[in-house]
Amino acid sequence: MTDRLSLPHHDPSIRHVSDPDPAPGETVEIRVQVPDGWRSTAVHLRTVIDGEAHYEPPRHQDRRTGDAVFELACTQPVQHYRFHLRGPHGGHWLNGLGVVEWDPDDHADFKLVPGHRTPLWVPERVWYQIFPDRFATTGRHRHKTEWARWAEWDDPVERRPPDNMCQLYGGDLDGIIDHLDHVTALGIGGIYLTPFFPARSNHRYDARTFDTVDLLLGGNDALIRLREACDRAELKLIGDLTLNHTGDQHEWFVAAQADPASAEADFYYFTDHPHGYVSWLDVPSLPKLDHRNAELARRLYDGPESVVARWLGDPYRLDGWRIDVANMTGRQGRIDLNQEVARMTRATVEATGRDPWLVAEHFFDAAADAPGDGWHGVMNYAGISRPIASWLGKTGTLHGMSAGPGQDPRAGAAMARSLDTVRAAMPWAVLLGSMGLLNSHDTARWRTMSRSDDLALVGFGMMLTLPGAPCFLYGDEIGLRAAHSEESRAPMPWGRPWNQRFLEWYRTLIAVRNTNPALQRGGFRWVHIDDDQLVWLRETLDQRILVRAARAAGPAVILEPDLLGAESGQPLVGDQTLEGAPLILPGDGPAFEAWELA
Amino acid sequence: MTDRLSLPHHDPSIRHVSDPDPAPGETVEIRVQVPDGWRSTAVHLRTVIDGEAHYEPPRHQDRRTGDAVFELACTQPVQHYRFHLRGPHGGHWLNGLGVVEWDPDDHADFKLVPGHRTPLWVPERVWYQIFPDRFATTGRHRHKTEWARWAEWDDPVERRPPDNMCQLYGGDLDGIIDHLDHVTALGIGGIYLTPFFPARSNHRYDARTFDTVDLLLGGNDALIRLREACDRAELKLIGDLTLNHTGDQHEWFVAAQADPASAEADFYYFTDHPHGYVSWLDVPSLPKLDHRNAELARRLYDGPESVVARWLGDPYRLDGWRIDVANMTGRQGRIDLNQEVARMTRATVEATGRDPWLVAEHFFDAAADAPGDGWHGVMNYAGISRPIASWLGKTGTLHGMSAGPGQDPRAGAAMARSLDTVRAAMPWAVLLGSMGLLNSHDTARWRTMSRSDDLALVGFGMMLTLPGAPCFLYGDEIGLRAAHSEESRAPMPWGRPWNQRFLEWYRTLIAVRNTNPALQRGGFRWVHIDDDQLVWLRETLDQRILVRAARAAGPAVILEPDLLGAESGQPLVGDQTLEGAPLILPGDGPAFEAWELA
Repeated sequence: MTDRLSLPHHDPSIRHVSDPDPAPGETVEIRVQVPDGWRSTAVHLRTVIDGEAHYEPPRHQDRRTGDAVFELACTQPVQHYRFHLRGPHGGHWLNGLGVVEWDPDDHADFKLVPGHRTPLWVPERVWYQIFPDRFATTGRHRHKTEWARWAEWDDPVERRPPDNMCQLYGGDLDGIIDHLDHVTALGIGGIYLTPFFPARSNHRYDARTFDTVDLLLGGNDALIRLREACDRAELKLIGDLTLNHTGDQHEWFVAAQADPASAEADFYYFTDHPHGYVSWLDVPSLPKLDHRNAELARRLYDGPESVVARWLGDPYRLDGWRIDVANMTGRQGRIDLNQEVARMTRATVEATGRDPWLVAEHFFDAAADAPGDGWHGVMNYAGISRPIASWLGKTGTLHGMSAGPGQDPRAGAAMARSLDTVRAAMPWAVLLGSMGLLNSHDTARWRTMSRSDDLALVGFGMMLTLPGAPCFLYGDEIGLRAAHSEESRAPMPWGRPWNQRFLEWYRTLIAVRNTNPALQRGGFRWVHIDDDQLVWLRETLDQRILVRAARAAGPAVILEPDLLGAESGQPLVGDQTLEGAPLILPGDGPAFEAWELA
Repeated sequence: MTDRLSLPHHDPSIRHVSDPDPAPGETVEIRVQVPDGWRSTAVHLRTVIDGEAHYEPPRHQDRRTGDAVFELACTQPVQHYRFHLRGPHGGHWLNGLGVVEWDPDDHADFKLVPGHRTPLWVPERVWYQIFPDRFATTGRHRHKTEWARWAEWDDPVERRPPDNMCQLYGGDLDGIIDHLDHVTALGIGGIYLTPFFPARSNHRYDARTFDTVDLLLGGNDALIRLREACDRAELKLIGDLTLNHTGDQHEWFVAAQADPASAEADFYYFTDHPHGYVSWLDVPSLPKLDHRNAELARRLYDGPESVVARWLGDPYRLDGWRIDVANMTGRQGRIDLNQEVARMTRATVEATGRDPWLVAEHFFDAAADAPGDGWHGVMNYAGISRPIASWLGKTGTLHGMSAGPGQDPRAGAAMARSLDTVRAAMPWAVLLGSMGLLNSHDTARWRTMSRSDDLALVGFGMMLTLPGAPCFLYGDEIGLRAAHSEESRAPMPWGRPWNQRFLEWYRTLIAVRNTNPALQRGGFRWVHIDDDQLVWLRETLDQRILVRAARAAGPAVILEPDLLGAESGQPLVGDQTLEGAPLILPGDGPAFEAWELA
């Protein structure tokens, strides 16, 4: 196979772009790694200005790195670019999919989105998802509630509707505070909290109001206490908001049904008032919002008085929102206001001046829905979860992964191509602002989807060392299993024995992630791909980390120090030092290792 | 290599879609060819409804064709879809790039654009481009003109500015009428006429008004005479309009410079009135239009009183417009109204009720700029001209082809991938509404770009048998050469000997194209690809045509009748009948052949 290190490389990370988050009009320096055999003077930067292609030769060659260095003026709303190269076999192109010998279209061009940066603190942290009814309880809020059926903490979860919705364990926000020591001991930097609004279900995605915190969780004051506790623990905290629909008991929908002349009646798609209306996937309790309505926008996401803005301000000071069902929001048949909603919401959160994060639920190809000026990023099921599951997961449907009618184990190259496909279409800032995840409360748990403990741990290593903001679900760190999303929401088993091997591995890898900038914001480059083994580099100009993931034992990868640009590697994960010429990687598997190169 | 006929196939042509131009909400029947070894019952149609993926099993299997048949409700603005398949080696996807074993993104999904069809008469015709100053002259309009330098018909063309612009040969519209017999004898179905508005150059892209036909061409009456002559000859006739800029002597720009308070002053981007303004590629004589101005839109392209609409109506009745510099129109730095202009223009031409064609100049990747609801199609330089030139053309820069810094000859697979890349990203209706061309007045001539007469003829055959509306420049049919766009505009040498081999080949192939529906609207499918030889199918449910293009001799392609679904082929181009089992294609080259299969 082609030695990948002998191919030119670029990605729009800090390794290769002097400012990956340029201001409009800013000129940035762009670097391409040009190995021997490729003429660095014959590399041209191709960009498109006002619809017309332009080609630029390099300004100079960096003597230390050998990089060809270009200048790029970011005058366009999206400044996209690729490179034309002359190599040993004639002209080639270099874009987000690598070096190709045909004429690509612009889709996989590298992309900068001037004026629309992702908060830098997002990819610097590892995220922990908490489903508040199931994480921890003080037992103080087991109020009598018409829709709820109270369960004891150790009861099994119900899978069947409607019991799955109304089974309430009584987890609360003060319960989370009581267990923040567990979260911080893991090395977590931020909490993603699923909804806290009053609702008629344990998941609370059917909000009855966006104005208060559910009393079952402790009410508004409990959220303030949680915020303050997170501050003390140096934890960020983001909420979870549905813009696509409300619950049918939401105060807006109640008003809308009561009076067809009400302002709220235009917030929804009534087909036959009051009982005929469009709802999310035809679930009547979730009436869909009609985003053509400006008053709805003002109340929900447009401007400082909106729901979106208010919870980001004092005294709650959420650090951002995960937007539920973002992929469907604003879309109804031929009506498509999805991007308008995203852009207005982005403008609203940016206007707070608090640098919040806006991350969209999206199970599918999100490139068109997250071009960089709306959602900062997405829950990267398409670009992280499914590719990893396709390599390490079981045959058959992966519950909640939207993988299509059955997923088969794939060879390394197909898996890598799936990763590349998503990464290539996204602006780099969107990739860094996206959640890297293996599972969530909406899917089976990763341990159950993966074929073994060993492979589950390899997958976690991959997630932590691929670009994006890693996030996992409470309980993954102790090896919990669940074949279904309802089971994924089982209460955290505080009183039972935990899988200490998982816990130790999670702590170790999170510490590595937290202390190595190249893993947080560095570039990404494949070094080796075979059926059972993937090797890649994460790199800044100051730090280079080599990562190896293997699903099975196989031939050792042999790397020439000259091509690798390094003579040795100190282990960050694993215990084998790399040294000698050539450098020989371990051939064991399943395995996950990482080295800092020098 | 993989036998391509053993892979499933779909394209959104009439072969596979019951109505490739559905109305909004219409349910269409979708067919997939599923060869043995693939389970036709395990094919799923994946589409996206309101942002959410949905999977549908087939409704039935067609007993005659073996096709898996699905239903698809076209509820979305763009209804995109692909297929999930179970084959001999597990799960695969089928999208516009073919069968892939990784998870693709949606970019290469098949696409229908409900409510936005391309005029069917466009791909049914072969088009002929006329540059009016150089095609033919009556000699009646050699008026004294301040900017012009009169040339005799046999004088060489000037390449250097400003002489290249002001050298006038005096071709006129009545000259075209006098030579329509040449055009109709070729089998042409439509004329694309470059601008006829008064200007200060021989190319007339620097219009002085959009209200009249240049008197040097014979004035308004001459255009009416040409229109009537085209009617008699059953020829369509489209004009050429620049929406991106005007000439600096245009009546609007003159008014704008004279009075900063004039309505017209807001039509342009003045940076320092009256002499500082934005112009096309910084050419001062071509001030750029600012499409944020509604009055400009009303005058130029929005509504029945606009320039766009008026020339489509009586008495001129143009059949459409080629839009000059469409790729840059409406774009200036962070301002991007390109799609708004395209959609308004489309609405205006459709409101005429005359079913006109709107085709955009675009040298680059046009997928994002031609999503189906604006321009019907583009001049398909990226998807036809450059791929063919990359296979049959000379090394080095191909003048005017925007091929980047030098183009190298490519192997068949890379060339095919370039073709596929463009086709896969476009809705099928946009592909059929796009000009397939090898060259134009803006490029070198194809005969000069190609490496030999033989290869030039092969390239013409390819252009005529690939999807799209073929168009060539006056004089290509007699083998004219030109290394530069100015030379491409040399006068048609009516009085000199012509290359009869070219003329005969052009007439023969155009006749084949004109009489075979599968070449006009049929699907497209690769049968065989090697370095020097490409074989493909164009097919409807009623007709299947096999095409072979070879740039050099090589091993004969052997096809199993069972896989091909045909037992014989009658030659449409060439003289060898295909028969026997297996069917053995000729191995000669350079060669271009086509057979109707039975």
